[in-house]
Amino acid sequence: MNRVYNFSAGPSMLPLSVLEKAASELVCYGESGMSVMEMSHRSPDYEAIIADAEAMLRKLMEIPDNYKVLFLQGGASTQFAAVPLNLIKRTGKADYVVSGQFSGKAFKEAQKLGYDVKCIATSKEDNFTYVPVVTKDMIRPDAAYLHICFNNTIYGTKYPYIPETGEIPLVADLSSCIISEPIDVSKFGVIYAGAQKNMAPAGMTLVIVREDLLDYAEEKMPTMLEWKTMAENGSMYNTPPCYTIYMAKLVYEWILELGGLKVMQQMNQKKAALLYDYLDSQDYYKAPVQKESRSMMNVTFVTGDADLDKKFASEASKAGLKNLKGHRSVGGMRASIYNAMPYEGVEALVAFMKEFAKNNPKN
Amino acid sequence: MNRVYNFSAGPSMLPLSVLEKAASELVCYGESGMSVMEMSHRSPDYEAIIADAEAMLRKLMEIPDNYKVLFLQGGASTQFAAVPLNLIKRTGKADYVVSGQFSGKAFKEAQKLGYDVKCIATSKEDNFTYVPVVTKDMIRPDAAYLHICFNNTIYGTKYPYIPETGEIPLVADLSSCIISEPIDVSKFGVIYAGAQKNMAPAGMTLVIVREDLLDYAEEKMPTMLEWKTMAENGSMYNTPPCYTIYMAKLVYEWILELGGLKVMQQMNQKKAALLYDYLDSQDYYKAPVQKESRSMMNVTFVTGDADLDKKFASEASKAGLKNLKGHRSVGGMRASIYNAMPYEGVEALVAFMKEFAKNNPKN
Repeated sequence: MNRVYNFSAGPSMLPLSVLEKAASELVCYGESGMSVMEMSHRSPDYEAIIADAEAMLRKLMEIPDNYKVLFLQGGASTQFAAVPLNLIKRTGKADYVVSGQFSGKAFKEAQKLGYDVKCIATSKEDNFTYVPVVTKDMIRPDAAYLHICFNNTIYGTKYPYIPETGEIPLVADLSSCIISEPIDVSKFGVIYAGAQKNMAPAGMTLVIVREDLLDYAEEKMPTMLEWKTMAENGSMYNTPPCYTIYMAKLVYEWILELGGLKVMQQMNQKKAALLYDYLDSQDYYKAPVQKESRSMMNVTFVTGDADLDKKFASEASKAGLKNLKGHRSVGGMRASIYNAMPYEGVEALVAFMKEFAKNNPKN
Repeated sequence: MNRVYNFSAGPSMLPLSVLEKAASELVCYGESGMSVMEMSHRSPDYEAIIADAEAMLRKLMEIPDNYKVLFLQGGASTQFAAVPLNLIKRTGKADYVVSGQFSGKAFKEAQKLGYDVKCIATSKEDNFTYVPVVTKDMIRPDAAYLHICFNNTIYGTKYPYIPETGEIPLVADLSSCIISEPIDVSKFGVIYAGAQKNMAPAGMTLVIVREDLLDYAEEKMPTMLEWKTMAENGSMYNTPPCYTIYMAKLVYEWILELGGLKVMQQMNQKKAALLYDYLDSQDYYKAPVQKESRSMMNVTFVTGDADLDKKFASEASKAGLKNLKGHRSVGGMRASIYNAMPYEGVEALVAFMKEFAKNNPKN
């Protein structure tokens, strides 16, 4: 077994110990005589797994009791529709900040559904190299919610603060930074996140929703997108993505054993600092993101020469540093250094960057 | 390792060799240096997996070239909404046969969305103990489609024929009989199926749709439910449930190696015959389903005494025959004997039934 360092933006690395545990009990789970993949979702064995997953996540994130935790399907992209379908009836309109590709998609999806939505701030003109400032007075006072994407995977930016929205529920896509550090859940009305970056394999979507926001669903909407229906059925209105939830449970357990989200944050800060400090110490590579908007999870950089960028990603891959090519819409390089990326992986990357710069002088 | 015989209606048994293969390559897949769970869905390694999955399924089912194969999320329950949202605009109305709980849910979902839908036949009055006769003259001539559930998991019934619908597209939920036997795909407009009975762990939904039916989607519908969008993006409009699709690929491969769907059908017929022949040979247990409507996948039976039924399921479980309790809405017993249930499992069940009948005489 020759494991690589996988800098993919998602699906992405999972902790080796989690993978090894999953492999060891894949064919037969405990005393059940079957794989978790084969368990009825209504069986006591599986009900214990999903209950543990929720309990561990609640503990990790310190989720207040008046929030429901839902394990759904369809990815953040499905929530782009579910958010307005479940919430906009509160007042009939909603506001969005467009700070990158996914927040733009969320905004467009609400428009596609025919809703009165307004983009109150965007950094599009500056190629999303920062997160726009958001203050309460920018939000329409009768907005049903403000939608943001808290960490922008493609551009490598993140809100340096949680926007203050007063009584207006803040709805946030946390796909690429969920459980990477402690966060005050009570500041949000709704948090959602695809699993495939920091939590589990692809195929599960986490939704954390404040209970008082469950009563605004459209009547004529797909039942499967109704948060209230899912909450009332403990995420089991139909068969949930059982195995992916089990994998998430193993990941939550791994973080709890490490010491929780404060320890995770320290580990992530240390990794990000190693890479950003190197980027700031030289001028061969440039980090396009403004410092105060830097993501701790996705680090973007360029050489300034598209051919060199291409060579970098290709040679890095041969050296066992995989998926460093930037998103097809922006080019350059991107190192996604989620929870499961070991410090040694970032050390190896920085060493490779130094070597590459030395061997490939610019004209 | 002490594997049980798991008669669960879904999630359900997977072939042992598939589970063992998955376990063996869970941590590191081939030369990739990573788990399939960690692969970018845009990576060549993963693109080969999803392409293989589709190619194998096309070969297995002999899917004509003018049909698209989609690997989606959300289960059949999401398709209950997606079907009218994608198709009803063709004429503005649609017809349904209600032959059990899930076809009833599909019908209600279309009603909930505000559509003109008509139930043209049901066996509800007879507790769904048979599949109602469906002939072309019963369908409204201007129906956008006729929706059926081909195998009714809960009641243990199945259409003994594919209804003739002429030019009206036939839309069928095949969740609990997909790839259990050859079927003429060209007789259907749309086939859909949750994976967790005969194909893979829960978390993937197969949709097979005739290309000319991709052009009727509502404008104001969630993008993630649009078949056309998914078809145009090769099921990768967003991150698909990568690992579940990989598991489906392993299952397709397993069936191809066995000899394909004709061999699978023979194996399934032999298992079902063993159980039904025993049921027909005695009068301790009764099989409530009319003979011509019997499912090859889900076999229901009762003792006629609710306490005895309960004791049966409980003692069977202790004997390693799991999940034989009937669905909570109907009681009695149900043995789901999908592809992965070995013949020996059904033999063990029949032996247990005989022993139980002997040891528990009725008054």
